[in-house]
Amino acid sequence: MAKNTEVKLSKRDIQTLENLTNMAEIVIKQAKRKKDPAVNIPVRALSNVSFNERKRIIEMGKRTSQRQLFNLSQAKSFMQTMLVASGTKQLIEQGKSTSIRGLYYLLKHTISGVKEETFNEQGECDTIIEDIEVILNSLREELHLAAENRGTMVGNITVIDNGDEIDCTRMGSGGYAIPSIVEPNIIQFKKCTAQFILHVEKGTVWQRFNEDKFWKKHSCILTHGAGQPPRGVRRLLYRLHSELKLPIYCLLDNDPWGYYIYSVIKQGSINLAFESQRMAIPEAKFLGLRSIDFARCELSDSVKIALNDQDRKRAKQIAEYPWFVKKKAWQKEIETMLTNGFKLEVEALTNRDISFVTEQYVPQRLNEGNFLD
Amino acid sequence: MAKNTEVKLSKRDIQTLENLTNMAEIVIKQAKRKKDPAVNIPVRALSNVSFNERKRIIEMGKRTSQRQLFNLSQAKSFMQTMLVASGTKQLIEQGKSTSIRGLYYLLKHTISGVKEETFNEQGECDTIIEDIEVILNSLREELHLAAENRGTMVGNITVIDNGDEIDCTRMGSGGYAIPSIVEPNIIQFKKCTAQFILHVEKGTVWQRFNEDKFWKKHSCILTHGAGQPPRGVRRLLYRLHSELKLPIYCLLDNDPWGYYIYSVIKQGSINLAFESQRMAIPEAKFLGLRSIDFARCELSDSVKIALNDQDRKRAKQIAEYPWFVKKKAWQKEIETMLTNGFKLEVEALTNRDISFVTEQYVPQRLNEGNFLD
Repeated sequence: MAKNTEVKLSKRDIQTLENLTNMAEIVIKQAKRKKDPAVNIPVRALSNVSFNERKRIIEMGKRTSQRQLFNLSQAKSFMQTMLVASGTKQLIEQGKSTSIRGLYYLLKHTISGVKEETFNEQGECDTIIEDIEVILNSLREELHLAAENRGTMVGNITVIDNGDEIDCTRMGSGGYAIPSIVEPNIIQFKKCTAQFILHVEKGTVWQRFNEDKFWKKHSCILTHGAGQPPRGVRRLLYRLHSELKLPIYCLLDNDPWGYYIYSVIKQGSINLAFESQRMAIPEAKFLGLRSIDFARCELSDSVKIALNDQDRKRAKQIAEYPWFVKKKAWQKEIETMLTNGFKLEVEALTNRDISFVTEQYVPQRLNEGNFLD
Repeated sequence: MAKNTEVKLSKRDIQTLENLTNMAEIVIKQAKRKKDPAVNIPVRALSNVSFNERKRIIEMGKRTSQRQLFNLSQAKSFMQTMLVASGTKQLIEQGKSTSIRGLYYLLKHTISGVKEETFNEQGECDTIIEDIEVILNSLREELHLAAENRGTMVGNITVIDNGDEIDCTRMGSGGYAIPSIVEPNIIQFKKCTAQFILHVEKGTVWQRFNEDKFWKKHSCILTHGAGQPPRGVRRLLYRLHSELKLPIYCLLDNDPWGYYIYSVIKQGSINLAFESQRMAIPEAKFLGLRSIDFARCELSDSVKIALNDQDRKRAKQIAEYPWFVKKKAWQKEIETMLTNGFKLEVEALTNRDISFVTEQYVPQRLNEGNFLD
């Protein structure tokens, strides 16, 4: 039987393997020179994260900490670091990918001679995966680690996915399921006549736009991320934006959660600041819903959802984010929501008409060109 | 501009509209005859649900209750019933679909003259939607109501989705996103050379099977439902099974949640018993993971996850389900898990090898033909 004997490595795979090997060689060299083996790991704490005003993304600072083998409190995590590195090396060499859960099981075993497990729980392994990502400056997708895929795409683009040509104008009502790993060795863009990307928060709203063939009428690409978009969707949006120069407009709920989704798409997430460089899209625009939409769209009182304490607290926190704090329009947006005392879901526009959002709301916003930035 | 002036109604749409109109006409007739308007609603309580041993599905009984307009405690829900019926009629006539959230917003308004809202919260509307489903014997998908879509499909089948031909052998790493509404007027099966369906629990496991092109080697269709499969996935599996006569094998975690997913696919869900007729697949088989797999697959102690009290309680409840209680093999399966004292995830097989599940575990089970029923 033809087994996976010949694995075709991409350029990036070769690079990642080299980085993994280099890391190991540093440790070996230290050992040979009778020095205590150690690796330097960039610090992934809030104290080492800042907003780069020029690049307009959240970035990690330069602080690192040492992880040593001969240190009682660090020996185990040193071992785990080597283990995860060797596990991802194995994945890349075999040309296979797995989930973080799969990697955990792949590497979990009882250490011979003692009764200790290499990992006691998933969380331990996840932390080390993030360490390896920052050490190597690799996205976990480049380490062949996939997440659950969520989110779909339709519109005026043809992509090649793993050799298969996928014409996103002919994807029916279901759409193309955006994979978790969308790196260039797997996904290439073949043909694109879209003028922009409309990214909506929820699948059910996406369905409305797809059913009304919005992408056809307005020559665009239509995506959703089933709430906070997963890494695959963020990375695909980034690639579509940076490689095909497509503007991105976000249609999200008028609530702190919607603001936060926008913030992550635009500036990156605070927890995973090291990924912003290849995930964040500072040029992304916020199309709506806006706090002024209740009045502007003449909505009925019935669609108001009262803000609760948690909403008010989150809204104030978001207003303080360095990338929002200096923007008058954003300050006003959040202030207006707080003064309104209510939030609005995109689906609230249904109260006007089923297709109000696709036939009036979004086309009007696009015509005006008046977005929050 | 070309508006949706000509809506093409499917046969089923015409039937559903007729049923909706009939319901309204009964009310009108009553009023004209000076009788108190009322509708009969089949009772959706556990007391009116039973397991049909011959059909092997969970079924609703024949008990109904009356909902009257001139009854203080029923007047509001009578009004809501008429409102939801007229809302879905509007959707069907316009050839559009929306989410249950969308319908809620579409119908929510302040009743003129009083300060009452038609609906105060989503839950009220959802209950009425279920009422309408049972009154008309229509699935909510036939009422043009969609849910979030979850779950993907690849393999040896070509479907027509809303006029677009989708060849599921050429769907790359992402796959075809299974829509929420998969009724015959939207999805048709064009060509199928698959011999069976392998349904797996999680997207990450599905990715492993897709990456290894399992569906190609074994000539099958590969689906997942991101956990408990949503209605669209269940309905699609049902149609694939009943129209194309494809056997369905389920690969789920060896835990009470996995058993429960199987139970819902096979016999239907207790809460939505009225849908079993067109959703449940009594012939579905449970391929694994089995409680004997820890020993049979020579897994390491490291992959065991200890059962907690909740697991034990759920396992015992499931063992008592009428469709499991008389099956020796199922009683033994659940008993063995309880004696083992641990559960196993499908990903645990990764501990043997990344592709152990696709190259050994599932092929061996298929060869033996030894499934739980």
